[in-house]
Amino acid sequence: MSISWNTDFCKRLQIRYPIILAPMAGITNMPKLVAAVSNAGGLGTLGGAYMSPEQLRQAIQEIQSLTDAPFAVNLFAHMGKDQYEGWSKVITALQPVQQALNIPVPTPQMIVTPDHFEAQWAVLLEQRVPVISTTFGLLSDTHMQQAKSLGILMIGTATTVEEAIQVEQNGCDAVVAQGSEAGGHRGTFDTQTKPLGSNIGTMALVPQVVDHVRIPVLAAGGIMDGRGLVASLALGAQGVQMGTRFLTSAESGAHEVYKQALLNSTEDSTVITTAFSGRPARGITNTFIRNWNATGMQPLAFPTQNTLTRDIRNAAASQHNSEYMALWAGQGTRLLTDKQSAADIVEEMMATARTLLQR
Amino acid sequence: MSISWNTDFCKRLQIRYPIILAPMAGITNMPKLVAAVSNAGGLGTLGGAYMSPEQLRQAIQEIQSLTDAPFAVNLFAHMGKDQYEGWSKVITALQPVQQALNIPVPTPQMIVTPDHFEAQWAVLLEQRVPVISTTFGLLSDTHMQQAKSLGILMIGTATTVEEAIQVEQNGCDAVVAQGSEAGGHRGTFDTQTKPLGSNIGTMALVPQVVDHVRIPVLAAGGIMDGRGLVASLALGAQGVQMGTRFLTSAESGAHEVYKQALLNSTEDSTVITTAFSGRPARGITNTFIRNWNATGMQPLAFPTQNTLTRDIRNAAASQHNSEYMALWAGQGTRLLTDKQSAADIVEEMMATARTLLQR
Repeated sequence: MSISWNTDFCKRLQIRYPIILAPMAGITNMPKLVAAVSNAGGLGTLGGAYMSPEQLRQAIQEIQSLTDAPFAVNLFAHMGKDQYEGWSKVITALQPVQQALNIPVPTPQMIVTPDHFEAQWAVLLEQRVPVISTTFGLLSDTHMQQAKSLGILMIGTATTVEEAIQVEQNGCDAVVAQGSEAGGHRGTFDTQTKPLGSNIGTMALVPQVVDHVRIPVLAAGGIMDGRGLVASLALGAQGVQMGTRFLTSAESGAHEVYKQALLNSTEDSTVITTAFSGRPARGITNTFIRNWNATGMQPLAFPTQNTLTRDIRNAAASQHNSEYMALWAGQGTRLLTDKQSAADIVEEMMATARTLLQR
Repeated sequence: MSISWNTDFCKRLQIRYPIILAPMAGITNMPKLVAAVSNAGGLGTLGGAYMSPEQLRQAIQEIQSLTDAPFAVNLFAHMGKDQYEGWSKVITALQPVQQALNIPVPTPQMIVTPDHFEAQWAVLLEQRVPVISTTFGLLSDTHMQQAKSLGILMIGTATTVEEAIQVEQNGCDAVVAQGSEAGGHRGTFDTQTKPLGSNIGTMALVPQVVDHVRIPVLAAGGIMDGRGLVASLALGAQGVQMGTRFLTSAESGAHEVYKQALLNSTEDSTVITTAFSGRPARGITNTFIRNWNATGMQPLAFPTQNTLTRDIRNAAASQHNSEYMALWAGQGTRLLTDKQSAADIVEEMMATARTLLQR
């Protein structure tokens, strides 16, 4: 079958273009960007994992006020319980950072991660969000059935063929095949046996996943423009999920120093690190990562390390110091454009696709 | 411009298809496979780096006896001088392996790597090979001028945009953009500051390289079939370089247990290791790599570690023991086919390309 961008995934969702905004939890003002991508004919995704139920409801209502088009909300399938094993060593290692940023050293009692999942889930059902995507594993049959009974389209995230097969067996309607180029957290299910996650390049991962599942596959990782879109469709994907490209868009609420770090970076600026959250994620190398690696230490488990470093990341942001922020980014940052609107990015991608495919 | 497989690179070389057999030094009976790919309309490449000048001349003459079509020969731009720093620790770490394989423990005097480069180079000029490709850096202006004065087409290998720019400035006619999915040695120039090399996924690397050089870019890494070919052309490449896919072909001289390990592997079976050669390379994880990693040691520098482990790899091969062989492989091994002829592989890829592009 010849390459087409009007894929079954697009038809099912009644969206014009197979371009999905990746969930980016922790970026402010996301509803505006989510709605902009959906209004442009793609599918915006709200990264809701770190939001309180009330914040999540407000964000969803804001998106609904900005667009009538479908959008998605992403949650972590498993937030996990706090674990404090190794606390004293980690705290000792982080003290120079807290001193540099002039913030207090926390006690374990101060680092408690709320597990809002059930309450967040209830909000998604209550608000009848059109699409729910998940990362870090699978949802229970009960949750899957609740979503399906309301006609919500479910998308899982996989970093290997085996994970993709599990996503399909779990009942998801589509699966994101997340290649190693992708910025931010790896979707890898089991980071106990694979501390840095599975890191298969998009070019290799997508066709192997396509050959092993029947549900639509959405390619993620290193896709930055219309060339990457057509390449992904050629590999058998029915759409692309892109995060980094939209981080420097006009509607992005990413911090200004984060945007500058992205625009100043190259394809070789990032590493996969567990230093910020305890889970493997790709970000631009900075002082925080270099110093942490120099200690040779293991971080606390997710989500505790993530909660522990939040004050550091927030203080660094308020001090405009990108050396201690989590600068999540993929490997395609030379292709970033500054302050381009999401609609322009989507239309430019489709214009390139039409030229490449003579349509 | 719309996607076409009849690229300027094909026209310049007068080859039918933009499919290049990757150089695979150390695989026996390569002339047959090289000629098979060239006869199929692609461009075969002989991995000549480890051959003596006489072996190289014989291999080239065998290829010439099997095809009138263009072919390439690959050499390492820099073999490097032997370095024995850390010898006693490395020898101690390897002794259990030598015992397991029942082979003697060598002395430093026994581990001497000949640098055949100048003599190899003379053979390539004497034999007027149509194409020369290099890895591990750049050739001197003198060598480049000698090749160009004979009308030899020169191809360099890059793993980053900066390396690709240097390859173009060096005077090469084309550059291989080697993505992180690729099997075997990383082409990274400077492995002193980057012990594991630069590992940018093909999907991200190719378009960024294409945007920064004027010479044709050849995509490598995770490309296994016609889908990968069309994807690479969409990214702006003028051809693809594929190694792993041809290792299990009918004409491949790869060891039987190596072929079985490839066919039994998945997209997640490989790692980047310096254990076998001192340079980073992607291969299937086995006992040798696991045990080496457990020591936490640094290998000797390339080429000394490579020469030191040759007896181990050769003994393992003769004992049909893949646990101590270098099982170089990319991340696309679920897409391997067993005993398919090189001509079938090439024709199947082009048939897929015609279908995807409606040509």
